[in-house]
Amino acid sequence: MSKQRIIIIGGGFAGVFAGQAITRLLKLRRGNTDGYHVELINPTNYFVFQPLLPEVVSGTINAPDAVSPLRALLPGVHFRMAEVIDLDVAKQQITLLQGSRRIPQSLSYDQLILTPGQRTDTSHLPGFAEHSFTLRDLDDAHALRNHVLQCLEHADITQNPELKQRLLTFVVVGAGFSGVETIGELKEMVHRTLRYYPNIQSEEINMILVQRGDRILPELSPQLAAYAQTDLVQRGVDVRLNSSITKATAYAVFEDDGNRISTSTLVTTVGNGPVQLATSLPFETHRGRIVADIHLRVKGHKNIWTAGDVAAVPNATTEITPATAQFAVRQAQQLAHNLIAELQGKPLQHFDYTPKGSMASLGNYRGVAEVFGVRISGLAAWFLWRGFYIAMLPGFATRLRVALNWLLDYFVPRNSVQIRNKPAGSAAKRLYAAGDVLFRPGQIVDGLYILISGKLESRSSDGTFLRVIKPGDHCGERSIETHHVTVGTLSALEDSEVLVLKREDFELLYQSLPVLRQYFHSISDNTYPDELRSASRNESPLTEYLLEGQEK
Amino acid sequence: MSKQRIIIIGGGFAGVFAGQAITRLLKLRRGNTDGYHVELINPTNYFVFQPLLPEVVSGTINAPDAVSPLRALLPGVHFRMAEVIDLDVAKQQITLLQGSRRIPQSLSYDQLILTPGQRTDTSHLPGFAEHSFTLRDLDDAHALRNHVLQCLEHADITQNPELKQRLLTFVVVGAGFSGVETIGELKEMVHRTLRYYPNIQSEEINMILVQRGDRILPELSPQLAAYAQTDLVQRGVDVRLNSSITKATAYAVFEDDGNRISTSTLVTTVGNGPVQLATSLPFETHRGRIVADIHLRVKGHKNIWTAGDVAAVPNATTEITPATAQFAVRQAQQLAHNLIAELQGKPLQHFDYTPKGSMASLGNYRGVAEVFGVRISGLAAWFLWRGFYIAMLPGFATRLRVALNWLLDYFVPRNSVQIRNKPAGSAAKRLYAAGDVLFRPGQIVDGLYILISGKLESRSSDGTFLRVIKPGDHCGERSIETHHVTVGTLSALEDSEVLVLKREDFELLYQSLPVLRQYFHSISDNTYPDELRSASRNESPLTEYLLEGQEK
Repeated sequence: MSKQRIIIIGGGFAGVFAGQAITRLLKLRRGNTDGYHVELINPTNYFVFQPLLPEVVSGTINAPDAVSPLRALLPGVHFRMAEVIDLDVAKQQITLLQGSRRIPQSLSYDQLILTPGQRTDTSHLPGFAEHSFTLRDLDDAHALRNHVLQCLEHADITQNPELKQRLLTFVVVGAGFSGVETIGELKEMVHRTLRYYPNIQSEEINMILVQRGDRILPELSPQLAAYAQTDLVQRGVDVRLNSSITKATAYAVFEDDGNRISTSTLVTTVGNGPVQLATSLPFETHRGRIVADIHLRVKGHKNIWTAGDVAAVPNATTEITPATAQFAVRQAQQLAHNLIAELQGKPLQHFDYTPKGSMASLGNYRGVAEVFGVRISGLAAWFLWRGFYIAMLPGFATRLRVALNWLLDYFVPRNSVQIRNKPAGSAAKRLYAAGDVLFRPGQIVDGLYILISGKLESRSSDGTFLRVIKPGDHCGERSIETHHVTVGTLSALEDSEVLVLKREDFELLYQSLPVLRQYFHSISDNTYPDELRSASRNESPLTEYLLEGQEK
Repeated sequence: MSKQRIIIIGGGFAGVFAGQAITRLLKLRRGNTDGYHVELINPTNYFVFQPLLPEVVSGTINAPDAVSPLRALLPGVHFRMAEVIDLDVAKQQITLLQGSRRIPQSLSYDQLILTPGQRTDTSHLPGFAEHSFTLRDLDDAHALRNHVLQCLEHADITQNPELKQRLLTFVVVGAGFSGVETIGELKEMVHRTLRYYPNIQSEEINMILVQRGDRILPELSPQLAAYAQTDLVQRGVDVRLNSSITKATAYAVFEDDGNRISTSTLVTTVGNGPVQLATSLPFETHRGRIVADIHLRVKGHKNIWTAGDVAAVPNATTEITPATAQFAVRQAQQLAHNLIAELQGKPLQHFDYTPKGSMASLGNYRGVAEVFGVRISGLAAWFLWRGFYIAMLPGFATRLRVALNWLLDYFVPRNSVQIRNKPAGSAAKRLYAAGDVLFRPGQIVDGLYILISGKLESRSSDGTFLRVIKPGDHCGERSIETHHVTVGTLSALEDSEVLVLKREDFELLYQSLPVLRQYFHSISDNTYPDELRSASRNESPLTEYLLEGQEK
C-alpha cells in the first residue's frame, strides 16, 4: 500500500504548527506515522521568530537564539530545502528547485498545505525597493544592523555636517508592533554604543516613526498605545502621526506633504504582499491572499489547504482574519485537525477564534501587553513577551539555554559593537531626486553608472557645463580604467534611476567579454566625454588613485 | 604645542597590543595622554581572535564571542574605520579611503606603526582563488559554515551518488594549528548534525587533511603531534602526509601525484602572503614581509615601526620570527616600549623572545598543549586553550559573560543547525578541468557563461556535436531570455576558466545598457547556436521553466 503524501509548503508559524499538529494527531490515533509521508518544503532550513528580529538588529538577542532549525522543530516530518515554483492541480504535482544546480524536479501529493506566508511589497512606492530595509528574515536583520553601525562609524569621522545629519537620521515607517519594536530597539542600540563614538553627541541622533493613522499600535487598546507612545516620545523618538512616506532616494525620504527628510536609513514595516507562488496559482484571491473556506481548504479544492498570512480565512464566516502569528498558529492547528478528520471520514470543524491577547516590546526592557483583557506595561510586559518566545522553542535544553543566556545578558550586558563586512553585492539600482549630486570632484567611482530613466548633468570643477546624460548613457568607465578620482560634478536634473554595476564586476566583464571591450575602446575622448575621469592624464597617480579633492 | 601623532595601521594582535601598551606606558609616565594623539586605523571596527574561527564555523562558539569591538579594546586610542592605500614617507602622510563614498583623504603622522598583518595568497595554485575557503575573518567563517550546511542539505535529497560523494567530501590543506583545528571542528559539527539528515550515513562522510610535510603540527613536539594525529585518525579523519593539493576546480581537487579527489569543499590554511599595502611600500622585504631591525623599526626609518605577521623581525639578531599571535603580542609590547623610549631619548631594547608554550584545539572538547616544557592533552588542554582566550577579552563583565556562556554550552549544547541565506554574490570565476560537465539537459542556467581561457564543447541531448566555445564566446543568454531549461550538454575539452555573471545581474545589465541589448539581439539563432536554450520554442513553458529533464 503506497503512503498518503502530505506536503507542506512554507516553514513559518503556520507551516511549522501544521506539521507538528499532524504528526501529533497521527501518532495519537495510530501510534506511529506509518502509512503517511509528511514533508515540509522551505527555501531556508530554519524557522525565524520574526517578532524577535528587531532585537537581533540591536544585538540584545544573538541571531542563533531567534531562529530554530526546522529539522529539530519537526521530528517525524521529512524536510526539504527547496523553492516551489509551480503547482499542477490536475496532476497533483508541485515543481521545485533544489540543490546548488537548481534542477527543476516534480513531487506528487495527496494532500497539499499552502503556508508560504507573505512578502513585503513596496512596488507602488518609488525608491523603496532600492533604498528601504525590511525585517522578514535573519539576513534583513544583519543587513540593517551592519548599516546602522556603518552610519555611526562614518558619522564619527566625517567633517561634513550635512552628511553627518543624514547619517544620524533613522526613519521607520509603520507604527504597528513591528515598527514600534524596531524604533525602540534602534534607539536603545544607538545610545548604548554612542560612548564609543566620541564625535557624536546624543542630541545629534534623529529617530523618526511615521504612522499613517492617528495613533500608534492600532492592535492594542488606546490606553496601552498611549502609554507606549509617551514612553517613546520621552526617550526622544519623533512620532509623526497622520503622515506617510511616499518616495525614497539615495539621500532622503519624502512625506506625503512633500516634506524632505534627509536620511540614509529607511526601515519599512508596512506593505505586505503576496509571495510570488501565491500570485501564479489558479486560485481565487482577496487582496493578494488565497481565499480559504471556513474549514481552511482553498476554495473549491478538496485536498488543498491553506493557513497563515497567505490565506484569506473567514473568521466565524464573516470578516477576514488578520495576518498575525497568533492566527497562523490557531489556523494551523485547526487545519491539521480537519485534514486528519477528512482522511478518516469524520466531520470537519469551522475555524473560529478570538485572540486572547497582544504584546509588544518597546526596547530597553520595557513592553506593553493586553492579555485576557488585562493591561500590563513596563518590565512585566517585557518578561511576558520573552517568556512567550521561550515557550515556543523546541526542547527543554534549548529553552533553558536561551533563558539563562537572557538572564546573563540582563546582568552582564553584551558589548557587541562589531559588524560584519558588507556582502559582496552586485548590480543594484539607485534613485536620485532632482538636484541630488551623485559625484563631486575628488571621489573614487565605485562602479559603472548606467542611467535607466531621468536625466543627469555633468559639469567640470569650475562649473562649466559638459553634457547631459540620457537613459542608456553611462559614466565612470574611464575613471575606473585610469584609476583616477573624479574631477567634475554629476548631478540629477530630474528624478533619475541609475543602475550601478560594481567596479570589480565591471572590470571582470570588460576583460572577458569582447563586445564590451570593443565598445568601450571605440568611444574616443572627444565623442564621449567622461566627466568622472581625471582631466590631467599626464600626472602619475599615487599608488592607485590621483588625489585631487578632499571631503570638506 | 601641537600633539605628537602616533598612527597605527591594522587592528590585529600586533596593532591592538601596541595601542594598549602605548596608552598604558604614557599614562604610567605622564598621568595622561595629553600631548599625544594615538590613532588606530582598520578596515573593520572589530578585532578577530583568528584562532577561534574554526569554532565559529562549527557553531560551538557564537560569532560575537570570537570578536571584540576595537573601540572597546582601546580606551584612549582614537579609532578610524578606513582602508589605508598609500604612504608618503617624505611628507609623513598616509592616504586612506573612508566612509561609504570612499573619498581619498590624507593624514599626517609623527610616528607610524605598521601592523596590517598578512593575507592568504594562493595565486600560484590554479583554482584556489575561485574555489577554496580561507579562515581569516568572521565573514570567512560564516561563508564556510553556510557552505557546509548547504552541502548536507543537498546531499540529503540528491539521487545522484556521484554528486552525493562530492558533497560529503571535505578537504583541508595544511596541518598546522589552523588546519588541525578546522578539520577537528568540521568533523565534530558534521557528525553532531547528521541526526537531522536521515538520508546521510556517518560512513559516507570523508574528511581529508592534506599536509606537505611528514607530520602534523610541526610547531609542537613529535609526541604531542602524534597524540593529535592518533586522535584525528581514530575519529575518522583521513590524514595524508607528504602530499599537497596543486589544483582546484569546481568539482574536484588534485594532489601533486595527479590523484583526483571529488569534492565541493576545499579549505586552505596555508599560503600566507603580504597585504597589498606592504607590497606597494618602498621598504626592503623578506619573503613578502617588511624587514625590521632588532628594535622593531622598519629598516632605515627612524619613525616607522612594524610588528606582527607583516614584519620580518630578527630574533636575537639571527633567525626571522614566525608569524604567530604569540610573537605578534610580544613584539607589539616591545615596540611600544621602544617607541616611548625613543620619544623620551632613552635607550631602546633588542627584541628577543623564546615562546613559552603552544596550544591547539582538536574539536570535541579535546586539545593538546605544551607549556613551559610540560605536555598536556585532552580536556585539560582544551580548557587551557579557552582560558587563554578569556584572558584576552576586554573587561571583567565580558569575560564573565563569555565564560558562563561556554559553561552553559558544555552542559546544554547548542542546537544551531540554521544557516543564513547566501549573500547576493556577483560575477565570479570558475575553473573546470578537462572532461568536466558544466551543464546537462534539464538544468536551469544560473548566469551568463563567458569563457576566459580553455575550450568548451557543446552537444545536443542525442550526443550530436554542435560547436566549440572559445575564449570570449559565451552561452546561457538564450536560456535566461526564454526561461527554458537546458537541452544540451556543455563540457570542458581542456582546463577552462569561465566568468559567470549572475542571472539577475545579466538581466539588469541587458535591459539597461543599449550596446549589450543590441549585441545579443543581433546574434540570430542560426549564426550563434545556444545549446543551453530549449530547442522546442513552441511549447509553452510551465509557470516559468520548461521542464524536460530531471536530476537522475
